[in-house]
Amino acid sequence: MLDDVKDDALKRLNYLAGHLDGVRRMIEADAYCPDVLKQTYAVRKAISKLETRILEGHLNSCVAEGIRDGRQEQVVSELMELYDVANR
Amino acid sequence: MLDDVKDDALKRLNYLAGHLDGVRRMIEADAYCPDVLKQTYAVRKAISKLETRILEGHLNSCVAEGIRDGRQEQVVSELMELYDVANR
Amino acid sequence: MLDDVKDDALKRLNYLAGHLDGVRRMIEADAYCPDVLKQTYAVRKAISKLETRILEGHLNSCVAEGIRDGRQEQVVSELMELYDVANR
Amino acid sequence: MLDDVKDDALKRLNYLAGHLDGVRRMIEADAYCPDVLKQTYAVRKAISKLETRILEGHLNSCVAEGIRDGRQEQVVSELMELYDVANR
Repeated sequence: MLDDVKDDALKRLNYLAGHLDGVRRMIEADAYCPDVLKQTYAVRKAISKLETRILEGHLNSCVAEGIRDGRQEQVVSELMELYDVANR
Repeated sequence: MLDDVKDDALKRLNYLAGHLDGVRRMIEADAYCPDVLKQTYAVRKAISKLETRILEGHLNSCVAEGIRDGRQEQVVSELMELYDVANR
Repeated sequence: MLDDVKDDALKRLNYLAGHLDGVRRMIEADAYCPDVLKQTYAVRKAISKLETRILEGHLNSCVAEGIRDGRQEQVVSELMELYDVANR
Repeated sequence: MLDDVKDDALKRLNYLAGHLDGVRRMIEADAYCPDVLKQTYAVRKAISKLETRILEGHLNSCVAEGIRDGRQEQVVSELMELYDVANR
């Protein structure tokens, strides 16, 4: 993983762990379900944002190198497999 | 929140925190990006599953009671707001 | 289906058919793939919007009546099945 | 667009137009809302499948060529913009 992507990803994960812990405290304190759900939606959005950064880094490093090195079929089929898993 | 939903939600959150920590370790160990992304997709799926349980409990408690108590407009508009936030 | 929801849904479907036909013409004219994809994303968003209207009507009619008529278990399990199909 | 992708896309769009027309007939015939929604979900899934084919063709043609021709920054930023629009 590219260094700046890695640093950013670790910061986001640290924040996500805190966010998820906040959801746990809400549930323990019997918060209103719709309020809990709004927070879990926000956690999922934040994970999507993290994924966007990782994917962009992947395209700009492994995918671009793979295509230049004659491994287009491999890197594209990996991308399509990811896309498939993400939308399953 | 209904007691069994609350117990289940807390167990799921505990598992999710561990899963997210596993993602952090993968990134620190410079795992291959597509492998990291497959794990973050799995975390998001697990959060969706948690949301399904919370939503079901909410429909069977607050929403059903609200409709029987003449507060249909309020509980339905809350549901639609949630739906909107989830799909934004 | 409630009358105003039905009218609205038919108008939206009519518009959607035209939008989808526009996508077909773009593909026939060899439009740039990202431009085609932006249009198919827009079509899917428009279908989601249609679904929101139908779901809201359903909650305000069949679901609310079902709960008042003692068929809570049935209408909630139908909703959860829908939710499951939508997120599959 | 690659020829085989174009042929496949036009076939899928033709089928989609018929599916959408079926949804219109269901609504006109006052079908049960959950049954209508299951069909609109299926239409959206089918559009997603079409998008997968178009995206794969795009990666294997314009994106791969762009990267080999020194336009990596342009093709990757276009992909990320698409990704962003899709998840908005």
